[in-house]
Amino acid sequence: MSNDHPIQPGCLYGVGTGPGDPELITLKAARLIGECPVVAHFCRRNGGGQARRIAEAHLRAEQVELPLAYPVTTELPHGSDTYRERIEAFFDESADALAEHLAAGRSVAVLNEGDPFFYGSFMHVYLRLRDRFPTRVIPGVLSATAAAAQLPTPLTMRDDVLTVIPGTLPEADLRDALADTDAAVIMKVGSHLGQITRVLEELGLREGAWYVAKASMEAEEVRPLAEAPERAPYFSMIVLPGRGERR
Amino acid sequence: MSNDHPIQPGCLYGVGTGPGDPELITLKAARLIGECPVVAHFCRRNGGGQARRIAEAHLRAEQVELPLAYPVTTELPHGSDTYRERIEAFFDESADALAEHLAAGRSVAVLNEGDPFFYGSFMHVYLRLRDRFPTRVIPGVLSATAAAAQLPTPLTMRDDVLTVIPGTLPEADLRDALADTDAAVIMKVGSHLGQITRVLEELGLREGAWYVAKASMEAEEVRPLAEAPERAPYFSMIVLPGRGERR
Repeated sequence: MSNDHPIQPGCLYGVGTGPGDPELITLKAARLIGECPVVAHFCRRNGGGQARRIAEAHLRAEQVELPLAYPVTTELPHGSDTYRERIEAFFDESADALAEHLAAGRSVAVLNEGDPFFYGSFMHVYLRLRDRFPTRVIPGVLSATAAAAQLPTPLTMRDDVLTVIPGTLPEADLRDALADTDAAVIMKVGSHLGQITRVLEELGLREGAWYVAKASMEAEEVRPLAEAPERAPYFSMIVLPGRGERR
Repeated sequence: MSNDHPIQPGCLYGVGTGPGDPELITLKAARLIGECPVVAHFCRRNGGGQARRIAEAHLRAEQVELPLAYPVTTELPHGSDTYRERIEAFFDESADALAEHLAAGRSVAVLNEGDPFFYGSFMHVYLRLRDRFPTRVIPGVLSATAAAAQLPTPLTMRDDVLTVIPGTLPEADLRDALADTDAAVIMKVGSHLGQITRVLEELGLREGAWYVAKASMEAEEVRPLAEAPERAPYFSMIVLPGRGERR
């Protein structure tokens, strides 16, 4: 393990803040958030940002805060050229803003909900900066396992295979990914809830599936999939505990 | 989210301690370990136990400690009847020992490396006790994401599918699980390293794969799979970052 105590100067830290409950942050993430002279977070144009809310108790008044506000919503169709251009330009600009601090020797903690290398925003700036500056990634608790922790059945046991699937996949890919696995977590359900439920039904998997929204937060919702609401938020999941041998 | 502050009396807590670095424990796990009157941990017959080492700083002298010592090593062939009988009897006895405290109203924190519902020991006592006592599972950082955090390439981006595979699977099942995924983590590599490497080679996936042993611990080892040692410990992993679009 590379040494990260005390912090390195001019180092880019990708800090996993965990799934939402501020108590599910690690001691290491809490320490680094307090120690880095600059703390950056991704957020919507109207401010806020889930990762910053989780980290709030560990921020200090003398730190520089760098909010990185998405120019578009993640709910837009990701395929369009306009979307791609705008989002890539936004990550370029964000990386430039971080690079200014790093080049001056100021370490930056980039807050990232869940884990930075697990569908995180951090990796977009990371890939732009990793060849120029030292980097460290601090893993965090996944929303997927925080959701599974609320269910009455363990997610994976013994020789279960677990597949993590973005709900945004085309129907055929979703079916392929679900067909051969024991346990599954389908992330980013949102407007795809109907399609996902249909595929699970076809595969005879609807029965044991659970719907979880806002895992570990105050507004957490946990229900059998059969009782899921008609509209699911983007950050909701469907969890299918392993079918491996159970006592 | 159900309230767990302060702790419930007579509640069985499955507490994820994270992958090994004591700083990768969550604030919630640290608190519950300190607050429960009884703290149990699984260990080998000769004592110790990784989860207890991680939790050590949060234990208090007045707590009752309950070591649960495995009668056999996890490296034995799991298929044999003798193994199964002995291990099931061990989990029965462990559950009885925990039930005594729970029935008397004393909450028990069962320490579990990584996450309790992700290939954890906790679930074996959980399944035996969940109908009799209140239970809570505290998710932890996975060794799988702690390993991925050490690599130069993000584990999953955009629409990547991730498959988590026990290295103990038969060769054909291993091949099927790897064939259709973007990213993969193969757990519990141990004596299966040769077979796994051969399958990855056949699928043209060996090139981008990494070998990680003792993720996040002092003795952590991270190498391209091509440079892996000939003998791998049981708790080593092979990580294949997603092949999804990279900038």
